[in-house]
Amino acid sequence: MINNNPQVQLLLTGNELMLGDIVDSNSAMIAKNLYELGLEVHKKVTIADNLTLLESEIELMSKQCDVLIINGGLGPTEDDLTSLALANAANQDLVQNNDALSHLTKWAKFKGIELCQTNLKQSLLPNKATIIDNVCGSAVGIYLLHNNCHIYCTPGVPNELELMIKDQICADLTSKIKTNNALSVQKCLSFGIGESSLQTMLTKELGELPNEVELGFRAFMPLIEIKVTSRTSSSHSTAEIYFEKIKRLLGSHIIQSNYNIPPSMAEVVVNLLKEKNKKLTFAESCTGGLIASLLTEVAGSSAVFEAGFVTYSNAMKTAMVGVENKTLEMYGAVSEPVAQEMVLGAIQESSSDLGVAVSGIAGPTGGSKEKPVGTVCIAWGSLNNIHSTTLKINGNRKYFQIMVAYRALDLIRRELLKCTEVPHYIAK
Amino acid sequence: MINNNPQVQLLLTGNELMLGDIVDSNSAMIAKNLYELGLEVHKKVTIADNLTLLESEIELMSKQCDVLIINGGLGPTEDDLTSLALANAANQDLVQNNDALSHLTKWAKFKGIELCQTNLKQSLLPNKATIIDNVCGSAVGIYLLHNNCHIYCTPGVPNELELMIKDQICADLTSKIKTNNALSVQKCLSFGIGESSLQTMLTKELGELPNEVELGFRAFMPLIEIKVTSRTSSSHSTAEIYFEKIKRLLGSHIIQSNYNIPPSMAEVVVNLLKEKNKKLTFAESCTGGLIASLLTEVAGSSAVFEAGFVTYSNAMKTAMVGVENKTLEMYGAVSEPVAQEMVLGAIQESSSDLGVAVSGIAGPTGGSKEKPVGTVCIAWGSLNNIHSTTLKINGNRKYFQIMVAYRALDLIRRELLKCTEVPHYIAK
Repeated sequence: MINNNPQVQLLLTGNELMLGDIVDSNSAMIAKNLYELGLEVHKKVTIADNLTLLESEIELMSKQCDVLIINGGLGPTEDDLTSLALANAANQDLVQNNDALSHLTKWAKFKGIELCQTNLKQSLLPNKATIIDNVCGSAVGIYLLHNNCHIYCTPGVPNELELMIKDQICADLTSKIKTNNALSVQKCLSFGIGESSLQTMLTKELGELPNEVELGFRAFMPLIEIKVTSRTSSSHSTAEIYFEKIKRLLGSHIIQSNYNIPPSMAEVVVNLLKEKNKKLTFAESCTGGLIASLLTEVAGSSAVFEAGFVTYSNAMKTAMVGVENKTLEMYGAVSEPVAQEMVLGAIQESSSDLGVAVSGIAGPTGGSKEKPVGTVCIAWGSLNNIHSTTLKINGNRKYFQIMVAYRALDLIRRELLKCTEVPHYIAK
Repeated sequence: MINNNPQVQLLLTGNELMLGDIVDSNSAMIAKNLYELGLEVHKKVTIADNLTLLESEIELMSKQCDVLIINGGLGPTEDDLTSLALANAANQDLVQNNDALSHLTKWAKFKGIELCQTNLKQSLLPNKATIIDNVCGSAVGIYLLHNNCHIYCTPGVPNELELMIKDQICADLTSKIKTNNALSVQKCLSFGIGESSLQTMLTKELGELPNEVELGFRAFMPLIEIKVTSRTSSSHSTAEIYFEKIKRLLGSHIIQSNYNIPPSMAEVVVNLLKEKNKKLTFAESCTGGLIASLLTEVAGSSAVFEAGFVTYSNAMKTAMVGVENKTLEMYGAVSEPVAQEMVLGAIQESSSDLGVAVSGIAGPTGGSKEKPVGTVCIAWGSLNNIHSTTLKINGNRKYFQIMVAYRALDLIRRELLKCTEVPHYIAK
């Protein structure tokens, strides 16, 4: 059995993780699934494929925590070292595991290939380990109890990992963790108030909390989750009062409450659009397609999204979404009148119900005294009801593009909810 | 002085990093800049904002490595704990540092604000520490030698960090590292051959390398860097022969050689377009704007990119880029004829020289027996010279979208280079 509030750590292995600019999406996925069980990852270590390093890190971490998830290094090639490192760390022999062998045999038969020596390496496990089934790949997962730490080794391939975590490891952990029936957790997800302002504001307004009620924050950048935990049955009603107070204080800055896994901003918007049976379109200049790509990351977004316009040049703002030349000349591309014409044109061209348009200066060059780098004009709404605003966002090019995309989606969310409250990032 | 081949480790602190799905771009940026100096990051640890954890991790890591870069936790709020943790770990007092105070005073004057108690916290440093200047923010960096490890604490704000790393920490490290004049490194960046195939192929074709020449791989997912290092002057010419052999073997799969910082695929394409004075456009279905957003992440991309078309629905494929209804009916949206009409329409509508169009099934649903999830049709070229192909990419929705975007950009790169070799991902 695992105690009620276990230490959970993550060990990621792979040369490609040491420099990669593409997201380490595996660790986020693992953390989100564990979080759903009430488990928080306290520490995450990333190392290159190096046997000595891997061995000593496994040994060290297994002494520090109750649950250790290792990701990567289960493949057939020479630089896949996890099984061997685990055997060495646990001082066990690396032996052919019959369950792993039978999995490999089935897998090869399904693929119509013959098992070669390289593949057979994947059946070698520490002698006391058990396998975790991999329903779609050759690499079985490995479970071992060592130093009283529950160690789970998982494959690096994202879809194999996801199924293994969701279907098997989470189920196994649930059966092992002592449940605290008295624990009650209420969560909501916010956007638009910075982390430190949010903390200061809530700490000030709520005053001192009773001992058995705990206020927590967690950033899913740029979203922030607020969590109220009550540890005894007698404190549940008090916790509920605090949670309701938080919801009142944050108002429309709460984008979702009552969920298991925190949704992305795009998911919230897609769900609202589906609910209200509306279609959305984008005319993007400075974000260059990012808003559309965030929306289409959501499976099923085709029900609410048909078209997006990436109008990077002035000429294309005119050709694709009908911005008037004289508007461009009079106000410049980064202006509310141009953003307004962009969104109107996009809505008309795509026959959508709603639209949002952005035009801004992502930098590092292109700024002026009146319109410095970081300036962005956003226009949004429906055909007969267009709003616009000008914002200033500080940060590098990528950060600027991400923040513009999130705020654009948030403004559409507010429009869909017929929300009259002015968001913090416009009001201030 | 720091030895020739130092152990470098990275410690990232921040609650937001434990779950965040948005890229930890700071560590990639730090690693890339250090890499330019010939330094490789061997281990990366990420922990939440917790004083005890932070202290013990600093102590542990400072014993393991020669250079430790700590990122985050230098801000004014209560959960910014790096300076205090460093003082505790090094058993030093936390004192007001005059240089830090004078920096804060100047900063406040520039901002036109009065220094409050919260800000003054940022002038408290371990008593033997020195400051690293921050040219655009309130948080000074901290340098301390402890356990014979060179510790640099840096701010979490990306643009402040970037300037501090590039202008100051890299310069400081350069002055401290014993240089090996005999060391020679040749690098190239490849796309289109998987890591294990690439390793197998090169190991086989090159045979055993002499002792003083070393072959290395590094994945900047999905790009892979190949590096030939020669450690003595006498082995330089041998290394050069091997490097030339590698370049011949990989041919057009090498997207860049001779660089300091590895460029992104989009940067390579933007540079080629600039060189040839050509403009590019996209018609995206299954990638939903991702290709355009990758291109517009590159500063200065406006010189070569004017417009992108996100045509997610069939109706919009017709309305925006003129795909014929009968083509859609006869072949379906995921077909080469439709992709061909998409790219032709996009080129015409935007008056671009070149274009690429993608239509595919990102999943998790929407597949059929003939066109399973993961199928994508790509068409690319110029008005009078359109090519197309159908590929199958396995992985989850996000991975599929990223791989399609990279291959689409790669096919344009090949077109710009008038390359006749068939890429590995099409040939096989």
